[in-house]
Amino acid sequence: MKEVIWDIAHLAHVELLTPKLDASTRFFTEIMGMSISAAQGDSVYLRAYDDYEHHTLKLTAHKHAGLGHFAWRARSPKALERRVKALEKTGFGKGWHDGDLGHGKTYAFQTPDNHAVEVYFETEKYQAGLADQSALKNTISKFPGRGMNVRRIDHLNLLASKIVDFRDFQLENLGGRLTETIIMDEKPKGVWFSVNSKSYDLAVTEDHTGLHGRFHHLTYAVNSREEVLLAADIALENGIFIETGPHKHAIQQTFFLYVYEPGGNRIEIANPTARLILDPDYETIVWNREERMKGQAWGLQTVSSFHTRGTPLPEDFE
Amino acid sequence: MKEVIWDIAHLAHVELLTPKLDASTRFFTEIMGMSISAAQGDSVYLRAYDDYEHHTLKLTAHKHAGLGHFAWRARSPKALERRVKALEKTGFGKGWHDGDLGHGKTYAFQTPDNHAVEVYFETEKYQAGLADQSALKNTISKFPGRGMNVRRIDHLNLLASKIVDFRDFQLENLGGRLTETIIMDEKPKGVWFSVNSKSYDLAVTEDHTGLHGRFHHLTYAVNSREEVLLAADIALENGIFIETGPHKHAIQQTFFLYVYEPGGNRIEIANPTARLILDPDYETIVWNREERMKGQAWGLQTVSSFHTRGTPLPEDFE
Amino acid sequence: MKEVIWDIAHLAHVELLTPKLDASTRFFTEIMGMSISAAQGDSVYLRAYDDYEHHTLKLTAHKHAGLGHFAWRARSPKALERRVKALEKTGFGKGWHDGDLGHGKTYAFQTPDNHAVEVYFETEKYQAGLADQSALKNTISKFPGRGMNVRRIDHLNLLASKIVDFRDFQLENLGGRLTETIIMDEKPKGVWFSVNSKSYDLAVTEDHTGLHGRFHHLTYAVNSREEVLLAADIALENGIFIETGPHKHAIQQTFFLYVYEPGGNRIEIANPTARLILDPDYETIVWNREERMKGQAWGLQTVSSFHTRGTPLPEDFE
Amino acid sequence: MKEVIWDIAHLAHVELLTPKLDASTRFFTEIMGMSISAAQGDSVYLRAYDDYEHHTLKLTAHKHAGLGHFAWRARSPKALERRVKALEKTGFGKGWHDGDLGHGKTYAFQTPDNHAVEVYFETEKYQAGLADQSALKNTISKFPGRGMNVRRIDHLNLLASKIVDFRDFQLENLGGRLTETIIMDEKPKGVWFSVNSKSYDLAVTEDHTGLHGRFHHLTYAVNSREEVLLAADIALENGIFIETGPHKHAIQQTFFLYVYEPGGNRIEIANPTARLILDPDYETIVWNREERMKGQAWGLQTVSSFHTRGTPLPEDFE
Repeated sequence: MKEVIWDIAHLAHVELLTPKLDASTRFFTEIMGMSISAAQGDSVYLRAYDDYEHHTLKLTAHKHAGLGHFAWRARSPKALERRVKALEKTGFGKGWHDGDLGHGKTYAFQTPDNHAVEVYFETEKYQAGLADQSALKNTISKFPGRGMNVRRIDHLNLLASKIVDFRDFQLENLGGRLTETIIMDEKPKGVWFSVNSKSYDLAVTEDHTGLHGRFHHLTYAVNSREEVLLAADIALENGIFIETGPHKHAIQQTFFLYVYEPGGNRIEIANPTARLILDPDYETIVWNREERMKGQAWGLQTVSSFHTRGTPLPEDFE
Repeated sequence: MKEVIWDIAHLAHVELLTPKLDASTRFFTEIMGMSISAAQGDSVYLRAYDDYEHHTLKLTAHKHAGLGHFAWRARSPKALERRVKALEKTGFGKGWHDGDLGHGKTYAFQTPDNHAVEVYFETEKYQAGLADQSALKNTISKFPGRGMNVRRIDHLNLLASKIVDFRDFQLENLGGRLTETIIMDEKPKGVWFSVNSKSYDLAVTEDHTGLHGRFHHLTYAVNSREEVLLAADIALENGIFIETGPHKHAIQQTFFLYVYEPGGNRIEIANPTARLILDPDYETIVWNREERMKGQAWGLQTVSSFHTRGTPLPEDFE
Repeated sequence: MKEVIWDIAHLAHVELLTPKLDASTRFFTEIMGMSISAAQGDSVYLRAYDDYEHHTLKLTAHKHAGLGHFAWRARSPKALERRVKALEKTGFGKGWHDGDLGHGKTYAFQTPDNHAVEVYFETEKYQAGLADQSALKNTISKFPGRGMNVRRIDHLNLLASKIVDFRDFQLENLGGRLTETIIMDEKPKGVWFSVNSKSYDLAVTEDHTGLHGRFHHLTYAVNSREEVLLAADIALENGIFIETGPHKHAIQQTFFLYVYEPGGNRIEIANPTARLILDPDYETIVWNREERMKGQAWGLQTVSSFHTRGTPLPEDFE
Repeated sequence: MKEVIWDIAHLAHVELLTPKLDASTRFFTEIMGMSISAAQGDSVYLRAYDDYEHHTLKLTAHKHAGLGHFAWRARSPKALERRVKALEKTGFGKGWHDGDLGHGKTYAFQTPDNHAVEVYFETEKYQAGLADQSALKNTISKFPGRGMNVRRIDHLNLLASKIVDFRDFQLENLGGRLTETIIMDEKPKGVWFSVNSKSYDLAVTEDHTGLHGRFHHLTYAVNSREEVLLAADIALENGIFIETGPHKHAIQQTFFLYVYEPGGNRIEIANPTARLILDPDYETIVWNREERMKGQAWGLQTVSSFHTRGTPLPEDFE
């Protein structure tokens, strides 16, 4: 038995591009309940109340929606070195840079599908001030009592044309494990990766358009399924487009709600209930076509836009 | 920075002693919603519906309540070897044996406070049959729809007279990290250990009686805080003694309910909400006397029995 | 201002016909968590744990599914007399009979769409025994901790070809008020009646088939939206067909789950949250076509079977 | 059988006195999530998002905390006449006045314990504007997504030295029914009145101080027990004193949280689950001393301040 590589600690942050920076920022602060850590140039940095780093979301003004980059935090300086050594050999490495607001030196690379990725260890932990200090010292900052009250970044879902390449690249160079996958006609159509005890931190599903580097959704976690229902009420009351949900995914069992933020990117508000993957030799769950035809856990048929829409939109590539 | 040892995957199972084996078994099956995997000699083996191993609870008939032993599962055969090598040097090792129902060869040792512990890697994964197969292939067995519907083992809380010795022994030989601790008059009064992304797997609090090897409580997780409230209704309706709760702990933020099973051992039904410790260089949260005086998160004063009662009871030692 | 007639206390019970009496009975007891009060002839009488009468559901063996009859309980003997006097004048009265198990003399009538209805005052209140007594004396019997744990009968939904006739008959002879209605092309397509502070006790929606006397669904209430989600898990795990939900209705805001019981009748498990109609001169909410096109509250498009399927099925009339 | 009088529709509003009008107003708007309808003189008028009248809470600046008055809305103009006729005969009537912001002519009277009460029918229904219109036309105004998000006024709890007098006065002149009562040593110590299908609208518990006209608490309802837990988190994070809870009352089964608003009055945030009293000849539940000694539903012992503290405080009478 080959030992699993556990050098990556967690998904650290995601940079989303938005053609409506102000409206997107208002959405994440007023509707999602997140806070602004900093603003610099064309970017705004945000975090949820229990995110421990400087930011988990960077919004950057751009002519269209999509992914700027995303980043992993390594488990230690040595773990970072090990991962960089592996990445350098792949031909997908882009090299070190000095970091950004909130974190130190960073190794940049790209996925086989052209998504920009970074990995680093040195970070700036968020220090709450008088105004946002929590009454409980094991909470990073005060529960906001505003909008959806999202707690922490949960996972990222990308689209990719070459799922097999992405999968192998991820497992060999970043480590962690493949917890679930969709296989149809002997070809993987979706892959779910975990680097810790969560059941997934990164998901990649097939991009039927043949485009590269596209973004499907970014997810923040709330504390209960009831809060996902409240989030749906809040979206409804504030004119935020609900694409699908609330419902329970068959894959990963996440209780979900999908909305579009004003810039056009899909955002998920989710609750994982008490599910964790603690089994060290967990075997990948494989879903076939027939099983996927049953829809989501309780039978909801997935809306077609969920299978096709990613950002940037196809017209943005023209 | 010293790299944290991540060789232990999770708390595997706990053996509880009970003077009322039948009544205890009925409690765990009918009230908690667990299932019997096997019965052998004076012992009954049980699991919650999403526990992936053969059992997470072994009930053994005995003249008094208390802890038989508890076990960790290692992350890999090599990780197991590394831990055994470390344990052998401590003088607390007791040696290998062939295992028990549901798992393979096991290394036995004791804590500095005389609790019996085991660690192993080889395990027998639970295979649901026609009657208890879940409709979702990523659930180990069917949601029972019976009583409290506990999902999985969560953590164990022991009492110990020598907290410092226990803490150092645990971190040096088993690894993981100390996520929270109570320090009063410069002395640790309670320690919370995590070996994965959960915020704790094992807690040890001071035994004021000076006795050794005692048990405080065993915890099973449910999917929501609402299910903890339902568990309280079920305990109430079935004459199960509720010691305290439902309420939210300040330490670790767990939403909890404490009951006594018929054999006299304290059992917790809990929900962790969306809290996880993903920060690889998480700094231990330290609680002082003044902070503990505030009671639980929302101000509930902890009942005195919670600070004093452990099993075996003092009279059981005579 | 005309004073509203408040002579009817609540929906009392519903008799459902089933071609699979045993399987239907098992569904209501094991899956829904209800209890059997009595069995007599081809009928089984059931109640939810906090239903205060002898039964709220009567299952009767029949060659096809559908409605046997349903019954209202009057607020007092005098209120009953007043309603009977009014009903006798309509031509839809069928006369008094001695009642059934669990209640006394009853006046029978039919709706303008041929549904069999009864109204009575004298009733037999359920007396829990040692085995099912609740620990709380303000609960009729013990919380079951079994399956969906439905608490009480909530409402009945019928199909009718002549909505206007039904609506006017109901308000003039039974009283209460019309809390919500769908009007398309100036014609009512659905009507929701309340006889107390609940937002509805009886709903009638248009039967597009032109058939008469059909049943759409019967609803039992649970204590929270989370319990509706748990009910969905239980349905999924037990092979119970989920037609739609869980989701939130725009009309009446009920959080709902629709399943088919083994006999073929549609059953709803629902939670009303904290919504009540306490305003004594509440004005009927009118929904138009455009508003209905938006789907349910959070955008779920209603499945087509929900608009067409009723019991008996059209082929049962042949 | 005597027919119950159903002439009162619901508890309409409560006027609370506060020595800290600004801080109290901020509490009800920012923490409770209510909205200001109007401000006039030394008073601020507020409502929860689904309250249908102009206001359900009037805050009035005063040198100490306590009750200004409270009001019932009658079911119809004729019902109002009937109640006034009865009240006029009691000697407790104070006569008609023109009303206040938000409602029309009003009959004022006092309870046998000197609480100021009013009853009226004509009211001004709240009309949401563009900014606070709900997406669901059956909700009075938009779900706020701010703080505790209370939905509607639920009930009022007063203290009284003469419980028997209060009880008889209420039932004879206002009508409704006594749903629960505490009787110790053959004397009533607490009475719970309902005028609709809710299990209570007004509660009166014994004032051991011998003072008159005191206030115990005012309650607003939220949609779920989970939202009561969220309310506790919000109170904790904002330095609002939590007196007791969240827990479940044995009496009435309400899931509760008690806090003190900055002016010193006790406020309850509560959820009634699916419980309603629909039985027209419901028999009053009687609790004795032994039963009360068991504490709240799940065993929480009631904090002593709950039994003694009312506003005005005893020193305010000096």
